[in-house]
Amino acid sequence: TEQTEVLFFPDEGLQCPRLNSRRGCLDPKCRSKHTPQSLARLEEILKSATKSCDVCMFVIASQQLIDILVELHLRGVHVRCIADNQDMDGVLHALRSNGILVKFDKSDYLMHHKFVVIDSKIVLTGSYNFSRGGMGINRENIVKVSYPHIVDAYVNEFNEMWRIYGKT
Amino acid sequence: TEQTEVLFFPDEGLQCPRLNSRRGCLDPKCRSKHTPQSLARLEEILKSATKSCDVCMFVIASQQLIDILVELHLRGVHVRCIADNQDMDGVLHALRSNGILVKFDKSDYLMHHKFVVIDSKIVLTGSYNFSRGGMGINRENIVKVSYPHIVDAYVNEFNEMWRIYGKT
Ligand SMILES: [Zn+2]
Ligand SMILES: [Zn+2]
Repeated sequence: TEQTEVLFFPDEGLQCPRLNSRRGCLDPKCRSKHTPQSLARLEEILKSATKSCDVCMFVIASQQLIDILVELHLRGVHVRCIADNQDMDGVLHALRSNGILVKFDKSDYLMHHKFVVIDSKIVLTGSYNFSRGGMGINRENIVKVSYPHIVDAYVNEFNEMWRIYGKT
Repeated sequence: TEQTEVLFFPDEGLQCPRLNSRRGCLDPKCRSKHTPQSLARLEEILKSATKSCDVCMFVIASQQLIDILVELHLRGVHVRCIADNQDMDGVLHALRSNGILVKFDKSDYLMHHKFVVIDSKIVLTGSYNFSRGGMGINRENIVKVSYPHIVDAYVNEFNEMWRIYGKT
């Protein structure tokens, strides 16, 4: 998991949940994809968090990815989210009703980042938002980097915004 | 230049053009910034191209960055651009009138990438578009990666799109 890695979207389809099971998929009628898909890999990386997950994302709207953040929060991972002032209500409801900390950039410029820092050790960054469109059909990329000097720079950027942005 | 590197925006201001000159800036009234700024570094990386520059960018609208692509083209660098079907006319005019190859994604989904591949050796990717807003005030990040297996993946992605997208 220390390797630099890249994910491209869109996927061909949904990855079969049995793909990585011990016996694999035995259903000859299964219509899911039996090759690795980027969304499944993104979810796997997010779920690997054990201590913290800092999400700094222009748009956070995908229920499927929000569910993962809630799952992390429920098992004790410290989840913090920063978003732009787009779609604030939806994000506020979905995340805050589950007890997850959220801050918004309410300035007139855009908080246009799309990055996640996991356990202060891994950065995911690229064009991909946690949006509905990002999920399915857009051409997008995410690069995963774990070099300490790079990760530290993103941690500092996140913490600076966390300090600046009020609680709404 | 082989190091992984990250740039954050917005800059504090314009970098003084004399900052990296031999004698530095001697003008006591100079109002430019005398510390490294991200836009100046981005321009420096783009100008380092000697063979090719493949730009795959949701929005290409910054005249300042377009001027650099034209400069590369004029000194024989093979410049190819892919953009989404936003602001097509402006991009078409600025780039094609200078003889630079441009293709557009005209599908209903978004070609939402924001990456550049330089000399098939360096990738720049992140949230930053070659847009007017990206230039000045938005919070943005670009990571520069030069690991061959990562760069090759972006080259393949670019070439696939180049094959798919028609000439308009
Ligand atoms: Zn299956
Ligand atoms: Zn100066």
